[in-house]
Amino acid sequence: MEYTAKSIANLISGEIIGSPNTKVTTISKIQEAQKGALSFLANPAYLNYLNTTKASIVLINKEFVPKERIKPTLIVVDDSYKAFATLVNLSQKLKNVELSGIENNSFVHKEAILGENVYIGAFSYISQNAVIGDNVKIYPQVYIGENVEIGENTIIHPGVKVYHDCKIDKNCIIHSGVIIGSDGFGFAPQKDGTYLKIQQIGNVVIEENVEIGSNTTIDRATLGSTIIKSGVKLDNLIQIAHNVEIDQNTVIAAQTGIAGSTKIGKNCLIGGQAGFVGHIKIADKTNIGAQAGIVKSVKNEGTILLGSPAFELTKFHKSYSVFKNLPEMRNEIEDLKKQIKLLEEKLGTTNK
Amino acid sequence: MEYTAKSIANLISGEIIGSPNTKVTTISKIQEAQKGALSFLANPAYLNYLNTTKASIVLINKEFVPKERIKPTLIVVDDSYKAFATLVNLSQKLKNVELSGIENNSFVHKEAILGENVYIGAFSYISQNAVIGDNVKIYPQVYIGENVEIGENTIIHPGVKVYHDCKIDKNCIIHSGVIIGSDGFGFAPQKDGTYLKIQQIGNVVIEENVEIGSNTTIDRATLGSTIIKSGVKLDNLIQIAHNVEIDQNTVIAAQTGIAGSTKIGKNCLIGGQAGFVGHIKIADKTNIGAQAGIVKSVKNEGTILLGSPAFELTKFHKSYSVFKNLPEMRNEIEDLKKQIKLLEEKLGTTNK
Amino acid sequence: MEYTAKSIANLISGEIIGSPNTKVTTISKIQEAQKGALSFLANPAYLNYLNTTKASIVLINKEFVPKERIKPTLIVVDDSYKAFATLVNLSQKLKNVELSGIENNSFVHKEAILGENVYIGAFSYISQNAVIGDNVKIYPQVYIGENVEIGENTIIHPGVKVYHDCKIDKNCIIHSGVIIGSDGFGFAPQKDGTYLKIQQIGNVVIEENVEIGSNTTIDRATLGSTIIKSGVKLDNLIQIAHNVEIDQNTVIAAQTGIAGSTKIGKNCLIGGQAGFVGHIKIADKTNIGAQAGIVKSVKNEGTILLGSPAFELTKFHKSYSVFKNLPEMRNEIEDLKKQIKLLEEKLGTTNK
Repeated sequence: MEYTAKSIANLISGEIIGSPNTKVTTISKIQEAQKGALSFLANPAYLNYLNTTKASIVLINKEFVPKERIKPTLIVVDDSYKAFATLVNLSQKLKNVELSGIENNSFVHKEAILGENVYIGAFSYISQNAVIGDNVKIYPQVYIGENVEIGENTIIHPGVKVYHDCKIDKNCIIHSGVIIGSDGFGFAPQKDGTYLKIQQIGNVVIEENVEIGSNTTIDRATLGSTIIKSGVKLDNLIQIAHNVEIDQNTVIAAQTGIAGSTKIGKNCLIGGQAGFVGHIKIADKTNIGAQAGIVKSVKNEGTILLGSPAFELTKFHKSYSVFKNLPEMRNEIEDLKKQIKLLEEKLGTTNK
Repeated sequence: MEYTAKSIANLISGEIIGSPNTKVTTISKIQEAQKGALSFLANPAYLNYLNTTKASIVLINKEFVPKERIKPTLIVVDDSYKAFATLVNLSQKLKNVELSGIENNSFVHKEAILGENVYIGAFSYISQNAVIGDNVKIYPQVYIGENVEIGENTIIHPGVKVYHDCKIDKNCIIHSGVIIGSDGFGFAPQKDGTYLKIQQIGNVVIEENVEIGSNTTIDRATLGSTIIKSGVKLDNLIQIAHNVEIDQNTVIAAQTGIAGSTKIGKNCLIGGQAGFVGHIKIADKTNIGAQAGIVKSVKNEGTILLGSPAFELTKFHKSYSVFKNLPEMRNEIEDLKKQIKLLEEKLGTTNK
Repeated sequence: MEYTAKSIANLISGEIIGSPNTKVTTISKIQEAQKGALSFLANPAYLNYLNTTKASIVLINKEFVPKERIKPTLIVVDDSYKAFATLVNLSQKLKNVELSGIENNSFVHKEAILGENVYIGAFSYISQNAVIGDNVKIYPQVYIGENVEIGENTIIHPGVKVYHDCKIDKNCIIHSGVIIGSDGFGFAPQKDGTYLKIQQIGNVVIEENVEIGSNTTIDRATLGSTIIKSGVKLDNLIQIAHNVEIDQNTVIAAQTGIAGSTKIGKNCLIGGQAGFVGHIKIADKTNIGAQAGIVKSVKNEGTILLGSPAFELTKFHKSYSVFKNLPEMRNEIEDLKKQIKLLEEKLGTTNK
């Protein structure tokens, strides 16, 4: 697709300096842009790139407009980053809208229900009684189990697998390789040392506006539901065990694991590779550092934790800075012992 | 499917209080049950839910039967949790039995051998000389490489990939996204700084009654076999490197990684996000805490380890509780230094 | 396939002791070999297996040839391990060469461009404008997005997903379940507590001779490219975030995570389950221990780090060895306090 400065300026209510007919076909960072690219300048640290950039059009904040005439066509706005993000989101939406229809070589069970303007890619499998909402995009090689419900506008990337009875609400984005609704890890130890599988007959419920990163796994509940509430953002390779609940707008970085039945509050920020034991409850707005190990419930909102087992972040840093000097501390104690021994000897002498 | 109180009581030898014609179509926790649900009451802490539950049928232990008449139909048994688990397992088995036949749009090589009553889902690929046992269920989008053998009753969920020459024995459950038999991570450093791939020509052998969680990866051996012995249970997102051996009935939680050639004993319990270096041997019944880092062999059965590098759990906890107070200890040492200096001064004065 | 001692000796310029007509059909470790197997003996610790092995042919170093006549046919070379590796690589190459052609039930967009001798497995999806180089092998159930380019001889194992616009150069090996080009984890916090998705419109660029292990995820850049340079080897279940760059010949073990925009130097060695925060720069030849947490840039080549947060490895080990004895140190300090109190009392007495 090709856009003119004029059409872009119209979309974002900007003012053009230069030719309104300048055309762009791509988007780039200002320092890497070539002819035909749209860039933006929102950070004064990058001002000097204005003179060297090969970008054809640059969105620019009012206050950064240079006095001399420069090569790229400028579009002047109040907040060029916001304007840029708007354009990008728009162009992406246009792209996705193009996908629709049921591709050959997909399987849609005759008792599945499809909404309007649905896209089902080749080699995807839609099972009996699945309900797919309007405008849902299901890319190739996706598996949707029996009775699964998917809300409108949700995008399911290639290779996602959703086991039977799970629900995904509207406006979600599920990335490739995500597994939703596999069995929770539940086994009863037997007298002979073997383990008996506990059937996992619950499901997974994902509310609206959730995004889930590649190869993340979310297990179905033993009974009831594993629940991911609206607005939650999960990064790649995260493990969510059975019966976990994650409340609204919590953000979790890659490779974190949450064990069974743990409940995470609203608007928490959780770093990468963190781990949570099962059956605990984490207060709203808790902030967990990367690689932390959370072994007990957090009761106070706004708590910030680090370490494994984790405790309050600034306390952890203080302890850790002493840890780094433990060998010196070890030596100091040895010195103190010697000094005391000397003192004792002196005192003995004095007393004699 | 729909079940009556009478048919359920027959299956589990229970005694009905209420109408034998009460019907249920689903299973729920007693605190969440709606009309048409079967629940159970095995824990006295939940006794008060008996009066408020909307469940149509409740399985109940003899000793918990209330004196007054209540709304749900009761089925009285000795152990309602066990009876409930039996029903659930039965209903799940009935469900799985329904799947059989080769779906259209699957690929089965003409030189693959299929047992009786096999299910092969659409878009699954069964390669040359693969041998699939009786009653095996292979869901859609699975890849079975050349010469792979799969034992009877094993269930392979959507999207699993099994590379050539690997063997999976009977009664296993392999969850979505599991990769079995990808190349071990073996490279020889060259003089110019590049690495030469060492071909990985071994395989993976998985014995009977093993369950493997979503997106777990098990690499093939360089030579010989990576071996997962009978009864082992692996959770999601686990990494098993080439030539690892895991002995019978060991249970490993999510996101743990085991480096090459390490051998884990029988009946070990291994927490989530733990890591093992390569070429070590772990005794039977070893218990490894979450996020532990195991850097050397464990010789004694029943050892319990925590920390990274890991050591004995109670010792770790004692050290860690001091770690949390290291800044205070640091201050105490400074105090001691001052006190000693004062003592020395005093003693000097005294001696004068 | 079947090979004779004569044909093998020819390939590796070896000298035969025994029958040149001895045949082998498989490859085994010397201690496990059966009739029909080719083994090798490169380590004197295994010399005694020469008398018991059932291998039909053994490659052997000159200096290990026994004086008495033994059962297997021997092929004598200077370096039997190298000869063995050569044979194995050759046999693997022969195997892969056999795969070619477009299987039925694959989807290749009419505007995709395929090179010569390409293999596209069933249920694979090649999107519009994708460019697939000569001799590329794409196994079943792979997804190749729009405008993706794949260089010659690259092997893509079953189930890999490559999002639109990503580039993979020649001679790469991508293992099953790898996700390349999923959206980076970028969200802007809003006043109402929700998060706004930042569109990720960059791509992923993978240079030549890169190998990527199963279920590893590499996110596309926000703008620009996430870059994996030539010769990099990534193990399984690794997370590479948006805009990361990994320089030539760096090797990373399983389950490591690298946060956004971090740049890793050339020829680094990175252990398993390590984590890197975003926006840092790691010098060439840095060596990172398993489970380490890297929270700041590394400026000096050859730095070796361990711990979380990580610091210099030998210093970490010294601190950790004191950590293990912290309770004893705690007691020593209590003792010192008592001793000083006693001294003070004594000194008081003396002074009186």
